[in-house]
Amino acid sequence: MKKTDSRSLKSFIGEKVILEGWVHRIRDMGAFAFLLLRDPWDVIQVVVPQAETVRDIPLESAVRIQGEVISEPRAPQGFEVHSLSISLLSPAIEIPPFELNKKDLEVSLSLILDHRPLSLRHPKQRAIFRIEGEFVNSFRNFLRQEGFTEIFSPKIVATGTEGGASLFPIDYLGKKAYLAQSPQFYKQMMVGVFGRVFEVGHVYRAEPHATSRHINEYLSLDYEMGFIENEQDVMKVETRLLAYALSRIKENCAREIELLKAKIPDPPEEIPQLTLAQAKEVLRKEFGKDLNEEDDLDPEGEKFLSEFALKEFKSEFLFLTSYPVSLRPMYAMPDRENPSLTRSFDLLFRGMEVTTGGQRIHEYQMLVSNIRKFGLDPDVFGFYLEPFKFGMPPHGGLAIGAERITARLLGLENIRQACLFPRDVNRLTP
Amino acid sequence: MKKTDSRSLKSFIGEKVILEGWVHRIRDMGAFAFLLLRDPWDVIQVVVPQAETVRDIPLESAVRIQGEVISEPRAPQGFEVHSLSISLLSPAIEIPPFELNKKDLEVSLSLILDHRPLSLRHPKQRAIFRIEGEFVNSFRNFLRQEGFTEIFSPKIVATGTEGGASLFPIDYLGKKAYLAQSPQFYKQMMVGVFGRVFEVGHVYRAEPHATSRHINEYLSLDYEMGFIENEQDVMKVETRLLAYALSRIKENCAREIELLKAKIPDPPEEIPQLTLAQAKEVLRKEFGKDLNEEDDLDPEGEKFLSEFALKEFKSEFLFLTSYPVSLRPMYAMPDRENPSLTRSFDLLFRGMEVTTGGQRIHEYQMLVSNIRKFGLDPDVFGFYLEPFKFGMPPHGGLAIGAERITARLLGLENIRQACLFPRDVNRLTP
Repeated sequence: MKKTDSRSLKSFIGEKVILEGWVHRIRDMGAFAFLLLRDPWDVIQVVVPQAETVRDIPLESAVRIQGEVISEPRAPQGFEVHSLSISLLSPAIEIPPFELNKKDLEVSLSLILDHRPLSLRHPKQRAIFRIEGEFVNSFRNFLRQEGFTEIFSPKIVATGTEGGASLFPIDYLGKKAYLAQSPQFYKQMMVGVFGRVFEVGHVYRAEPHATSRHINEYLSLDYEMGFIENEQDVMKVETRLLAYALSRIKENCAREIELLKAKIPDPPEEIPQLTLAQAKEVLRKEFGKDLNEEDDLDPEGEKFLSEFALKEFKSEFLFLTSYPVSLRPMYAMPDRENPSLTRSFDLLFRGMEVTTGGQRIHEYQMLVSNIRKFGLDPDVFGFYLEPFKFGMPPHGGLAIGAERITARLLGLENIRQACLFPRDVNRLTP
Repeated sequence: MKKTDSRSLKSFIGEKVILEGWVHRIRDMGAFAFLLLRDPWDVIQVVVPQAETVRDIPLESAVRIQGEVISEPRAPQGFEVHSLSISLLSPAIEIPPFELNKKDLEVSLSLILDHRPLSLRHPKQRAIFRIEGEFVNSFRNFLRQEGFTEIFSPKIVATGTEGGASLFPIDYLGKKAYLAQSPQFYKQMMVGVFGRVFEVGHVYRAEPHATSRHINEYLSLDYEMGFIENEQDVMKVETRLLAYALSRIKENCAREIELLKAKIPDPPEEIPQLTLAQAKEVLRKEFGKDLNEEDDLDPEGEKFLSEFALKEFKSEFLFLTSYPVSLRPMYAMPDRENPSLTRSFDLLFRGMEVTTGGQRIHEYQMLVSNIRKFGLDPDVFGFYLEPFKFGMPPHGGLAIGAERITARLLGLENIRQACLFPRDVNRLTP
């Protein structure tokens, strides 16, 4: 008898199989019973000929079922399993704090997060992370195909990327160190080695946020590419990357998309662009919202611009470009034509910024003098500056927040819903 | 004209192409010159008809070359590129602290690590990380094929996995927190959700090591699988995983293997096993080395046992099993037949432990009483214990140290050679 799971059960119709999972629900029909088995991928309807053999098994117990797969047009998936024997592998000894077999987990987010290892057993909660995983895996696979090399940069660092704010201090064997805010310096330096690099890793921001769009430890999807003309090359790669990832999600996560009733956008062929100045003009004219030249967009502005892009360009994605120097870090490449602007961009998706990127300064002297202009001390950045003396090619890159883009993709209100174990100002466990 | 690189240059013989990279070496032949271009993958021989056009380009400058690919039996790879034009994209402005175009980088490891972004430009240094990347990618791809789900667990935690030693403290917004030593608790809890999970991520050990086999931040390749019979199921998956990864490395990293003169072992079909007691007997009889029943192996013991396995079993891999309870953490499953032993294992490879794994306790009561037996307080582990009340299936897993196995694979003496930016008691930068 072959061990299988809900993903391939259909191909076993007429055969005997072994299934493993958790008791999701028992429907006692008197003479017989339906046992809904939640295996690692889906819920399977199992017919148990003698109800009394399963009546007393507590919900969420782990079981192994030997059964025969039978075609049954009235069953939810067109087949059901007729149980031959059930072994109780590990009984549940308490009643879960919420009902995991309801269509939705109808409890507060805070309760969901307090009991994360249990709430994730709900099929809809679990499905979020299968889709997020597919996005992350597509990110890596696409970039590998494009000649990018994966790197793993240190998360314990001596210096912050942007000069010192928002860093978590660590006691590092008696020395002062910090958690990395971003792999920025490392991925840039590695362009000088591998030409094109990417990294998937946690980054840390010590900001006492309690908003629905921030967490203090998040998964950053970074890439950086050398030998570019300008930031447009970086944006072209992202456009193709998104098209690839969205196609893979549609192909490989059909069941999860159905469960979550998610609207996965069509893979973009091209993404419309506005300069930040044009975007502010749109906000003024179309939404009566006034922002100064030096202001960054606020959440409302991002929402309005996404609405505008959908109406005007029929696009759920919108690139914003040409951010002023004052809104970008010291390594952002100034625009040669207009040095008060940088060759940088953000990507808005469904009302929120999901990517920040741009071309970086690759000339040593320009970088040193820019660090000084920002009121920082070049000596602090010694190890970062060194490779810039040795032919750093023109380069640029970006970072995508994995939880944030997943939340937008699935229409989740709070970024915490797309993080297995979120860390914020109030939450350090589970 | 098409942009290409050294990986596919051979298919362009007779055509004009664009190449990008760094000036690795210039050989001035008087009338003409050879320019060795180091692109992101290899070194390409470029013939420059007028030596004076390149004579003054500093080594390590980033250049773009338009040229024609010509078959040339005397050239190292059977072809060379005849330059049509060279653009200097970014000139080097200093002389590197070591010669990057020598066959080997003949300087101390400490200098190599001090100037990591430069030393990595050496083809042999760079090759190490291409092979490590292939191993990591194979780990993920194999496990995905086997129905494992990728997870990303938090690295900021409130409690250590083993009770509190070796933890880096963080100031977490005014609260005390730590860097995760291992994703152990999280991967176990996620078995209750996804059945089988894996994670690739950094872990942290606050031990003031200065040995060649330890670093304080390392890349841990973890998996954990539910519905097992015992630890042998975990070991079978690892055997197949190693066979897969070694085949992929041989297939995809032929150039790097050649450069490093690495001896990649044949993929194992089966890996021999000794219990720890048997292994100690071997050490006593064959090597005159006495260890007590409660002693763990020391580096010398691991070396001797690897020698023995190679001689006796013709295997570079050796599983050691049945470690005593006193040498394993509180979550290790005791052996039913002999409760002073656990259902755990280590994997030795070329004289060093590269994997630790085993079956875990899945019964709530047994886990709570084991925590007490270890002198720990179950209340501290509340969030970890909760899912064990709800049908945790029999499960087990393991962790492979990415840097350590890569170092063994490539015959590197120091684990730091297989880490892009190592962190140790003396090193926080670059």
